[in-house]
Amino acid sequence: MDTNVWLYIGMGLGVVSFCISLAINEWVKRQDAGTEKAQKIAKAIKDGAWAYLRRLYGALTGVAIVLGAVLAIVFSFSSEGFGLARGLQTAGAYVVGAFCSAIAGYLGMSVAVRANVRTATAAEHSLNKAFDVAYRAGSVLGLAMVGIAVFGMCLIYLLTRDPEIVLGFSFGASSLALLAKAGGGIYTKTADIAADLVGKVEAGIPEDDPRNPAVIADNVGDNVGDVAGMGADIFDSYVASAVAAMLIGFTGFLSFSAEEQAFYTVLPLILAIVGIVSSVIGIQLVRVGKNGKPGTALNMGTVVSCLIYAALATALFLAMKWNLGALIATVSGLVVGVVIGFTTDYFTDDNFAPVRKTAEIAKSGSALTIITGLSYGFISMAPSIIGIVVATLVSYFSAQAFGLPGIYGVGIAAVGMLSLTGVVVANDAYGPIVDNAKGVAEMSGYGEEVVERADALDSAGNTAKAITKGFAISAAALTVLALFAAYKEQIEQYMPGQELLLNLQDPMVLSGILLGAMIPPIFSALTMLAVTKNAFKMIEEIRRQFREIPGILKGTADPDYATCVGLASEGALKALVLPALLAVVLPLAVGFVLGPAALGGFLGGAIFVGVIFALFMSNAGGLWDNAKKYVEAGNCGGPGSDAHKAAVVGDTVGDPFKDTAGPSINTLITVMTLVSSLFAPIIARFHFFG
Amino acid sequence: MDTNVWLYIGMGLGVVSFCISLAINEWVKRQDAGTEKAQKIAKAIKDGAWAYLRRLYGALTGVAIVLGAVLAIVFSFSSEGFGLARGLQTAGAYVVGAFCSAIAGYLGMSVAVRANVRTATAAEHSLNKAFDVAYRAGSVLGLAMVGIAVFGMCLIYLLTRDPEIVLGFSFGASSLALLAKAGGGIYTKTADIAADLVGKVEAGIPEDDPRNPAVIADNVGDNVGDVAGMGADIFDSYVASAVAAMLIGFTGFLSFSAEEQAFYTVLPLILAIVGIVSSVIGIQLVRVGKNGKPGTALNMGTVVSCLIYAALATALFLAMKWNLGALIATVSGLVVGVVIGFTTDYFTDDNFAPVRKTAEIAKSGSALTIITGLSYGFISMAPSIIGIVVATLVSYFSAQAFGLPGIYGVGIAAVGMLSLTGVVVANDAYGPIVDNAKGVAEMSGYGEEVVERADALDSAGNTAKAITKGFAISAAALTVLALFAAYKEQIEQYMPGQELLLNLQDPMVLSGILLGAMIPPIFSALTMLAVTKNAFKMIEEIRRQFREIPGILKGTADPDYATCVGLASEGALKALVLPALLAVVLPLAVGFVLGPAALGGFLGGAIFVGVIFALFMSNAGGLWDNAKKYVEAGNCGGPGSDAHKAAVVGDTVGDPFKDTAGPSINTLITVMTLVSSLFAPIIARFHFFG
Repeated sequence: MDTNVWLYIGMGLGVVSFCISLAINEWVKRQDAGTEKAQKIAKAIKDGAWAYLRRLYGALTGVAIVLGAVLAIVFSFSSEGFGLARGLQTAGAYVVGAFCSAIAGYLGMSVAVRANVRTATAAEHSLNKAFDVAYRAGSVLGLAMVGIAVFGMCLIYLLTRDPEIVLGFSFGASSLALLAKAGGGIYTKTADIAADLVGKVEAGIPEDDPRNPAVIADNVGDNVGDVAGMGADIFDSYVASAVAAMLIGFTGFLSFSAEEQAFYTVLPLILAIVGIVSSVIGIQLVRVGKNGKPGTALNMGTVVSCLIYAALATALFLAMKWNLGALIATVSGLVVGVVIGFTTDYFTDDNFAPVRKTAEIAKSGSALTIITGLSYGFISMAPSIIGIVVATLVSYFSAQAFGLPGIYGVGIAAVGMLSLTGVVVANDAYGPIVDNAKGVAEMSGYGEEVVERADALDSAGNTAKAITKGFAISAAALTVLALFAAYKEQIEQYMPGQELLLNLQDPMVLSGILLGAMIPPIFSALTMLAVTKNAFKMIEEIRRQFREIPGILKGTADPDYATCVGLASEGALKALVLPALLAVVLPLAVGFVLGPAALGGFLGGAIFVGVIFALFMSNAGGLWDNAKKYVEAGNCGGPGSDAHKAAVVGDTVGDPFKDTAGPSINTLITVMTLVSSLFAPIIARFHFFG
Repeated sequence: MDTNVWLYIGMGLGVVSFCISLAINEWVKRQDAGTEKAQKIAKAIKDGAWAYLRRLYGALTGVAIVLGAVLAIVFSFSSEGFGLARGLQTAGAYVVGAFCSAIAGYLGMSVAVRANVRTATAAEHSLNKAFDVAYRAGSVLGLAMVGIAVFGMCLIYLLTRDPEIVLGFSFGASSLALLAKAGGGIYTKTADIAADLVGKVEAGIPEDDPRNPAVIADNVGDNVGDVAGMGADIFDSYVASAVAAMLIGFTGFLSFSAEEQAFYTVLPLILAIVGIVSSVIGIQLVRVGKNGKPGTALNMGTVVSCLIYAALATALFLAMKWNLGALIATVSGLVVGVVIGFTTDYFTDDNFAPVRKTAEIAKSGSALTIITGLSYGFISMAPSIIGIVVATLVSYFSAQAFGLPGIYGVGIAAVGMLSLTGVVVANDAYGPIVDNAKGVAEMSGYGEEVVERADALDSAGNTAKAITKGFAISAAALTVLALFAAYKEQIEQYMPGQELLLNLQDPMVLSGILLGAMIPPIFSALTMLAVTKNAFKMIEEIRRQFREIPGILKGTADPDYATCVGLASEGALKALVLPALLAVVLPLAVGFVLGPAALGGFLGGAIFVGVIFALFMSNAGGLWDNAKKYVEAGNCGGPGSDAHKAAVVGDTVGDPFKDTAGPSINTLITVMTLVSSLFAPIIARFHFFG
């Protein structure tokens, strides 16, 4: 079958997926929007979210124009002589990538800020109804995202037949994702920590209390951090995994026939198409049965989609008589991804030892709580790392056994792991929606039963989130490994006859690794310091309002929500400049000064340490969060006890770990690897040392 | 000049250095041992320290016998056919290495437990006199250690002419160091945390109060952790750096003349000799002048010894017309080591922003204190990493420019960095001695002025310690990099005609790196969890004593110190089993199963991540410690304020960071690299995959 046919199918299914998501969006809109008070609160959250998104997208437009212009100029010069066409194509793909990622984030946020109040209102009827609203709303983002991504990649490849141009698309998506994810992460934790520290601890009012001036900012934060930010982040991994495999399919198959080369370049897109179909079916099957549990429903959805994908892919490969090495690779990636997700759960679920022991030790104070949680966090990366190693070895050697380049197998395994992106994102977006719903229910005085139902939905969201997070980080790791291989192929293409040996014993490679290894910790530190700095400012503002607007605490005067929202926005955007510059400028500096081998080492170091940091920070954060909830459920002394206070400290430390620094590292390493691959043709020719 | 002459000079100077240390030891013994009460307390500390050391050395003897027997058998078979001689040589060198390391630790501890009370007593006269006693006592360990190490290495090489046998010596020293360092680290923090949490927080009695049942265990901990453990640790880096360079001098110079090969194999020992001379002179020059500051005196000692080393080495190289590439390499290592030490100081000194900002943010509670300290800890590794990179590149390319193998330059740079070990150890051992002296002075009722003087000496010790720690970690990193190169040379020697390519793109190497990268965090987690578990038990015991021996708090009944000391000993030794097994068994498992390339990657991953973790944990711990002291000095609310409570939490978290997990990682990566190099001949021939 002509590969073009697959590209058209991809574009068609992309449109279908997007349309389904629009239809679900309409369904969500039609749900009951609740009481006037609830709508008023929901509107405040919505306005805050839009205000931030407008500023973020404004800033991003500036960045996109500048970077686009740079790309246009640089890539016009890089070919033999000056040829504006290629430069414009790269720049165009870049801008489209950024734009697509922005659309996905926009749509996700738009449905999330509508769904929160509707979920809360549906919870007045039943838990199942509320679950339906929240989950379907989450699936809008999931389906829209995969639809846009596959459509975009197929279209660009169809027009240009050049995976390097698709790389530009991926870089566009990633550079937006980095800003959206890190910015959203800083925003959400600034508001969360400030609201908790002044509200709960100083003023003694409960969480999500409308008297707290930061309460709206806190709820806005859930949306901009966990919906828009997370969406952009997974969009970026998803695109990057496909592009990495396409690049390897192109440059790694130079010794194959032109037809085969074309096929293996497009195969990642074909697998993405299979993934879309599986996700669309899988999402429809997620239902909470009578007496069913929301958590089980979410996990069943993941597992069922996984089975559908494996079955469809196997049928397709057998029917078309395609190379089975690639099939084994993609299925191994998928299986390992799911196994990683569920084993990571052991470390963050309160049914197991790590959370319980941490809660137990909280009785002896916050210091030991921190040490214990951190220690379990360190250990918790073992299942994921071992899983990544297994997926790497199995996919590499199975591809090789069937006559394909081994590294192509790794790229295809990453595509396999991310093939369920639609489902994973739906699960993930469900979390902040129900979290917000709980907030809206409490603030609008919806009654205890409703709040309890919202709470049950919320804790299912937390478990699902922990699983998908382990999954997402591992998938990103595998993607980046494939991308890293693509970097090497790119460099070699432009240094004809020379092999780029990234030998661990070469001092340039070694130096690169050590320098790269510093970046994830420093990046984490910068984002976390931004959180504490901004939280400090917001704490001052909340205290000022309590002091200067005397009626707030009695409930007779409204607090000034907008100032807190503004502070969080401004602080987050300002704090982005340095980390974003690091991500783009450092790899280029290392490449142009120390040469391609040092840059290879640099990427390697950043990837290895980045995976370690992303995993331990996310897991430790999840563990502390659940240890606190375990104590709040009446264990180890229960609410108000010393153990509870210590557990709250653990949770507060874990907040920026799991929602700011940890997950942003994914995007950081993706951006750094993409920028290196993209500039590889130029770095290969111009560098000072090496 | 015949290289044998240098070996004899080395043995002679080793003996001289050791004798000087014995003479200083006698001088310390002759100092006034103070009041009867002080002597009683000092005796309790001494007895506790001996009791632990006896148990530790008992366990170590068992380990040494078992590992020695394994080495004897394995290395008898490994040569062509069966030849017991070589096996026995390797095993003998191993046992001698372990024994030498034990002697150095024993001697250091023996003088430290005597010097504490004598320093306290000398402080009754003047600060200068007390400084002299403490510093000279510290120098006993420093000089004994370098003396024994150089004597042992020269002797073994003279007898066997085989650097691989000297590798056995180094492995002996390292395996002991791992147990001594990790065990001592667990011991000291178990006692410290338990004593603080029950004594200071619950019972409200001050630090070092004789009514606290854990107070003797706490003081014993300073000796077993910071003197015996640290001594064994630096002994191990010192020997490993010389052995790594010797191995490269042997295998890397196969294409040179036999004479040149012999010279470059011995050159690391010659540089160690220059280091001994510089240290002996430098130590004599450390004096606190009238109105002088102890901290400045310690730092001046380091700088002056450094200049002496550089001058002597330059004179020697010029006089003997030796290759200047090696001179540049060794001096670059030394200079970078000192620069790293002083820049690291920025992050842990209370005159600079990081400590002050952390203290400031402590006002808003313990959670933000943890996040802030951790963030600065992450950033703080930058100077060291950049320093290591500079030292690597300069030494590699300067060696290459003068016709030597580049990697030999890196080995020689590590030797240069560690050439001042005598001085560094003297500075380091000074710390726990004055810390103990302060404790003894307080417990014996020596009056406020004496305690104040002891305090001044103590804070100088803390600053010196922070500097030497940065230095030690960086030196270990460079050493391990050289050792890592030696591993490759070893493997290639036994796989004739095959080059061991540690290519970052090889799936085996990549998998090895990812697996290796997990080890330092998991090792840290295991040791830290051991601390919290043991501290928990000791807290119960202290509470029991307060409950069941009613006169304790009134001062009418003596607490049962011995039980706490016993608990700490037993807990530390038990907790060692798993981490020690990890360090020895995992590299062998990776090597024999996944092959030499995967093992190379494994070592690389462990080294890169190990350096990152060692640096951030040590620096963050030092930062929190000094932030607490800064608050206690009356800043940010002063003692008893909320900021103080938060700062105490930071310090407690930092304790196992900086004194248990962080510094043990050094030894961990050294042991893993040594065990791999040692077994390389066998792994090269027998492995499953790869």
